[in-house]
Amino acid sequence: MKLLLTGFEPFGQESVNPSWEAVKAIPDMVEGVEVVKVRLPVTFKGAAVMLEQAVNEFRPDVVLCVGQGSGRSEVNIERVAINMADSKKPDNDGYQPEEMPVRAEAPDAYFSNLPVKRLVEALHEAGVPAVVSNSAGAYVCNSVFYTALHLVHNKYPDMRAGFVHIPYLPCQVVEKSKQPSMATETVVLALETILHTLATVNHV
Amino acid sequence: MKLLLTGFEPFGQESVNPSWEAVKAIPDMVEGVEVVKVRLPVTFKGAAVMLEQAVNEFRPDVVLCVGQGSGRSEVNIERVAINMADSKKPDNDGYQPEEMPVRAEAPDAYFSNLPVKRLVEALHEAGVPAVVSNSAGAYVCNSVFYTALHLVHNKYPDMRAGFVHIPYLPCQVVEKSKQPSMATETVVLALETILHTLATVNHV
Amino acid sequence: MKLLLTGFEPFGQESVNPSWEAVKAIPDMVEGVEVVKVRLPVTFKGAAVMLEQAVNEFRPDVVLCVGQGSGRSEVNIERVAINMADSKKPDNDGYQPEEMPVRAEAPDAYFSNLPVKRLVEALHEAGVPAVVSNSAGAYVCNSVFYTALHLVHNKYPDMRAGFVHIPYLPCQVVEKSKQPSMATETVVLALETILHTLATVNHV
Amino acid sequence: MKLLLTGFEPFGQESVNPSWEAVKAIPDMVEGVEVVKVRLPVTFKGAAVMLEQAVNEFRPDVVLCVGQGSGRSEVNIERVAINMADSKKPDNDGYQPEEMPVRAEAPDAYFSNLPVKRLVEALHEAGVPAVVSNSAGAYVCNSVFYTALHLVHNKYPDMRAGFVHIPYLPCQVVEKSKQPSMATETVVLALETILHTLATVNHV
Repeated sequence: MKLLLTGFEPFGQESVNPSWEAVKAIPDMVEGVEVVKVRLPVTFKGAAVMLEQAVNEFRPDVVLCVGQGSGRSEVNIERVAINMADSKKPDNDGYQPEEMPVRAEAPDAYFSNLPVKRLVEALHEAGVPAVVSNSAGAYVCNSVFYTALHLVHNKYPDMRAGFVHIPYLPCQVVEKSKQPSMATETVVLALETILHTLATVNHV
Repeated sequence: MKLLLTGFEPFGQESVNPSWEAVKAIPDMVEGVEVVKVRLPVTFKGAAVMLEQAVNEFRPDVVLCVGQGSGRSEVNIERVAINMADSKKPDNDGYQPEEMPVRAEAPDAYFSNLPVKRLVEALHEAGVPAVVSNSAGAYVCNSVFYTALHLVHNKYPDMRAGFVHIPYLPCQVVEKSKQPSMATETVVLALETILHTLATVNHV
Repeated sequence: MKLLLTGFEPFGQESVNPSWEAVKAIPDMVEGVEVVKVRLPVTFKGAAVMLEQAVNEFRPDVVLCVGQGSGRSEVNIERVAINMADSKKPDNDGYQPEEMPVRAEAPDAYFSNLPVKRLVEALHEAGVPAVVSNSAGAYVCNSVFYTALHLVHNKYPDMRAGFVHIPYLPCQVVEKSKQPSMATETVVLALETILHTLATVNHV
Repeated sequence: MKLLLTGFEPFGQESVNPSWEAVKAIPDMVEGVEVVKVRLPVTFKGAAVMLEQAVNEFRPDVVLCVGQGSGRSEVNIERVAINMADSKKPDNDGYQPEEMPVRAEAPDAYFSNLPVKRLVEALHEAGVPAVVSNSAGAYVCNSVFYTALHLVHNKYPDMRAGFVHIPYLPCQVVEKSKQPSMATETVVLALETILHTLATVNHV
């Protein structure tokens, strides 16, 4: 199995992004899974382009994108990507879309074709707090997720694609009030558990 | 310096207590600080008795008690212990006090004589989310904290005493909804940072 | 303008549903808008059938469904309905679907064709806390919302349809810990503001 | 019975204070209770002075102070006032104390001599979300509360004194994310329920 695993660069006021900290800690080969890691920019346009290039070049069996889910306390396995780019803050290009489609002439949303509930069960067995989430927001994370599923539906029907939102790192919430966080060790365990589950479970 | 460091046994529906998981991972000697570790029962009566015995026997310079702060997202350095035992759930003895004093004929509250704000600053510098808390509740944690400070005020005036509430472990919130947690690695870093600060800083 | 305004019966442990409390307080005629109010059952099958019957019979210009958003602190104007019925608890029929479609052979999701951001702005001007929400969940609320938009896309292209999640009533959270709530007076103001906005604003 | 009921002026970024909105809506005579209402400044020094003057002049049987409890979702009946003025933000005089006593040579804390648990029960029966709180913070609210109880302990032993923290108003959280609020109607019901309970219940 070949896995394309993406994290993001920091954005907003942050100097670190927990997604890249965890992704870069995953080995290049895990239980027979070849892992290619890509660090995406936090830009509506650049992230989608870079993801598509990486998919075209690497032809992965699975694309798993990881992003910072500000304020979330659990690992969130995302169920659905929406065709909506809408933001209250500019991205790292200074671009701030208002109710724009991610892709013109495309469906309102796509469901992930990963077994989201099975992944949550596997995470629970590993002792990692996790839930299925029904919203990846409408910021860059969702655009990347939508782009991956658009590729599944239009170009690579055998590819599977999913998105995982993770909490802040502890060091990111030092100056924030009552914000949950998760250590990189826990997120790495989560990603390894997801990889193991995807590699061993045959799902429809 | 001699430190008495306490954690608790599990209580309620839990099979683990994050305080003891972290406390038992602290070495017996840290930067010249001799550490004695005691695991307290979660009982209003037993915990206070065991704490007092340990203080009498070990004569520590500092007593630092650590407890599970259900639902908290940060390390909480407690400022004040109140002379109040009041609980919505029974302790591990099945005892459930209603608005009872911890100690008869004693003041309504005692402030910790640890430098609570300095400890929070040190934790922030170490990248650990932490705040000064103005309430340790009215359950067993608070009773133990009050007992330690009562000993300071009545028997060991040179002793310093404090209480630290820590979040759930990740594995504890797997079946809870939207509850923050903290990895033992992060809590151990917090305790080591507190010990280092207490060992090196002269405070009034 | 003709408006079909729906609320729900109570479900779970609750003896009241804030959505029906607010809906039934709206007059039958508001600023020239004729309002028909329907109380839906909290059942995946019954609610969709009753909604469709009401639409067929009343032929409203706008369908606005209101539901209890347990744990939410603000009025949530929902942006998207997903083709997913998935529940951790049975509905009032005892039916508990797992990852079932709301409608077979239908798209993964539909966007509301109400001006969701304009409605939030109008609510803010009226002093009502409100946000656009990107998830109506996967319980009965979402199924009703999806059904309404499915009717727009397949039968009544000129109809507009939206869903509003509202917080618990104050009396519902008396025995719940740290749960936000909203008084019926505030929800009624919210619904009146939404009706006024829909009645007066021409939107594309 | 004579009741001194206080609220506060706005502070921080706010243009309204929910405590004064509710207090001013209480009639001057409720069920035989004579109510004197005073609007306190949000200043560590001025509020305590004005409260003490009002107590000296009016000689109330009960002092009930009400304050904005930012971020709280329920009515909080405060159990304990601490001898600590410590703030992260300046008061309306620009004064920002760091770990200063409210009163020199005074105890670390005082318990309220109102029947706090009975008040919570009465509020629950009235359908108002409420809890006993073990911390009124260390800002101006706590200083006023401590001052009232200091007067009880040093000058007016028959007087009863308590403090109630209430949530934001709905209009205050319009621009805040996921903050709970409570309508003035609900807070007024809470205050009337408290007055009724204090007027009719004989407590030790």
